[in-house]
Amino acid sequence: MRATVMFGAGDVRIEDVPDARLIEPTDALVAVSRAAICGSDLWPYKTMEHSESGRQMGHEAIGVVEAVGADVRTMRVGDVVVAPFAYSDGTCVFCHEGIHTSCIHGGFFGTGEVGGGQAEAVRVPQADGTLVVLPVDQGDALMPSLLTLTDVMGTGHHGAVAAKVGPGKTAAVVGDGAVGLCGVIAARRLGAEQIILLGRHPDRIALAREFGATDVVSERGEEAVERVRELTDGFGVHSVLECVGLEQSTLTAIAIARPGGAVGRVGVPQDETMPAALPAFYNNVTVGGGPAPVRAYIEELLPDVLEGRIEPGRVFDRVASLDEVPDGYRAMNEREAIKVMVAF
Amino acid sequence: MRATVMFGAGDVRIEDVPDARLIEPTDALVAVSRAAICGSDLWPYKTMEHSESGRQMGHEAIGVVEAVGADVRTMRVGDVVVAPFAYSDGTCVFCHEGIHTSCIHGGFFGTGEVGGGQAEAVRVPQADGTLVVLPVDQGDALMPSLLTLTDVMGTGHHGAVAAKVGPGKTAAVVGDGAVGLCGVIAARRLGAEQIILLGRHPDRIALAREFGATDVVSERGEEAVERVRELTDGFGVHSVLECVGLEQSTLTAIAIARPGGAVGRVGVPQDETMPAALPAFYNNVTVGGGPAPVRAYIEELLPDVLEGRIEPGRVFDRVASLDEVPDGYRAMNEREAIKVMVAF
Repeated sequence: MRATVMFGAGDVRIEDVPDARLIEPTDALVAVSRAAICGSDLWPYKTMEHSESGRQMGHEAIGVVEAVGADVRTMRVGDVVVAPFAYSDGTCVFCHEGIHTSCIHGGFFGTGEVGGGQAEAVRVPQADGTLVVLPVDQGDALMPSLLTLTDVMGTGHHGAVAAKVGPGKTAAVVGDGAVGLCGVIAARRLGAEQIILLGRHPDRIALAREFGATDVVSERGEEAVERVRELTDGFGVHSVLECVGLEQSTLTAIAIARPGGAVGRVGVPQDETMPAALPAFYNNVTVGGGPAPVRAYIEELLPDVLEGRIEPGRVFDRVASLDEVPDGYRAMNEREAIKVMVAF
Repeated sequence: MRATVMFGAGDVRIEDVPDARLIEPTDALVAVSRAAICGSDLWPYKTMEHSESGRQMGHEAIGVVEAVGADVRTMRVGDVVVAPFAYSDGTCVFCHEGIHTSCIHGGFFGTGEVGGGQAEAVRVPQADGTLVVLPVDQGDALMPSLLTLTDVMGTGHHGAVAAKVGPGKTAAVVGDGAVGLCGVIAARRLGAEQIILLGRHPDRIALAREFGATDVVSERGEEAVERVRELTDGFGVHSVLECVGLEQSTLTAIAIARPGGAVGRVGVPQDETMPAALPAFYNNVTVGGGPAPVRAYIEELLPDVLEGRIEPGRVFDRVASLDEVPDGYRAMNEREAIKVMVAF
């Protein structure tokens, strides 16, 4: 089958790889109909050392069940399913606590024996725990929004939950990538009264305003902090969604949180240490977040997508065929595209 | 009047200083009857550069109201009052949110025009918001436990709250100082099922066991992490109270938290950055805490002290007169004493 393989920084190719197939009786085999390129795929795209064997890419996919292992109970061949970026059994202690990304029998797509989602097909371990059957067909107009439930919408929601967004609170979203934009949706959905987007790309800012951002701050560093303070009676915001992961963005996120506030980190951190540990401490600012247990959130977010109350699929501003995926990486890396959907 | 003044590392003296007096109409003047030396006083005791003028010390005091400003409404001369380590107006937005340490009109004892508690008397700004009138007299046997409400018991409680301790959960307390010991009390009070103390001083460990610690880990670093995992089915604990503030203790605190767990930091951090930001992120471990808004907790903890359900005053294992305070610093610094109470 054909699949996306990264061989090093800037080197993404569509290759023939061994067909995905059932291995364990709890597996499902899914023919991918929609996939996506993730902001987090751009970190290896910028930095990966050359590898002869390469790494299969992609962790966001919707598709049709082609085969199921003997122990799979909750889906049948032909079902349309959505696959969160991590697989999980749904039954372990961490899944019960809603931390599916730490599932004892879980793992991530595009690692080891489990291929990536930017491919014609993918083996899904722990299918009963991982996949959610969708009540729509493959051609449904909601496909882009449903596809965001695999990662970015659930991740934005996780940032908002970790940042303790709630009715009447003030929120800020650091970063105007697809996760930041979904963070705006999530903050509004959870009742934030004021939502400040920190970003500088006009097209993304326009979309953020449609999603519910009430204010935009395009300055950086100390100036950004100053602007947010001006917008919040000098206090800072209750809830900050950190959707970038760099040292500077984390510094800013902590600095704009008001005393007793919370920062939800969902940008993949690029540093071993967290800056601004002292301001966080002295202001009693809680720092939470991590890889989003998006599987935990699908049931909660799905009705809002199906009934059109949220439209996170609008973050996709480009559609590519599988052959066009390498150019999709380039376009996202050069900020030509917010997020690329791959249609098969 | 006589007061404790620190002139540099290791140099604490009892000096004659100008009498504490009312300045603002919202002030109270309190004749101190009990004070304490705090673990946080030992940081400047180890590191303070020499200062000609010195710094008045102490932020934990119980005393008798000697005079009140014209605007003070909630206390009278002669009332026995407890003063939390930070003063606060009780009416600002942050006080209403329970973050009294960030009060807009608040501040800390032993800074600027506000003297320290290790003195014959202390000026208490924002008296109505700051002080709590106690329903006991000065000679009451509960004085040591009531005195801990000024800081260490409220701080241990804050650590437990920030670490999200709750019924049936597992908890660990990093550090066996007075705050750590009060953290054990707080964790038990909030319903933790298993409470692991990380400490190595036999006298403190013995007290921790009486306070409710179910397990003790005296190893450090990786070995400590390994031991905590062994005690928790390999998972780590739900709630970690970080009661030290050093890089190593923070690393350990994050490493022993289970996925989705929380670390409550109440040890004053000695570093600008927080270590182990990546493990915290990948395990969705929340890091909260800060200077405890102990004023917010006095009403909650006071009944338990008055009715003898908790006995945090047992952390005081030495009583000193004001003249003996310099030796009290030495004794605490050399780990001869857990915590010193100053009786006037």
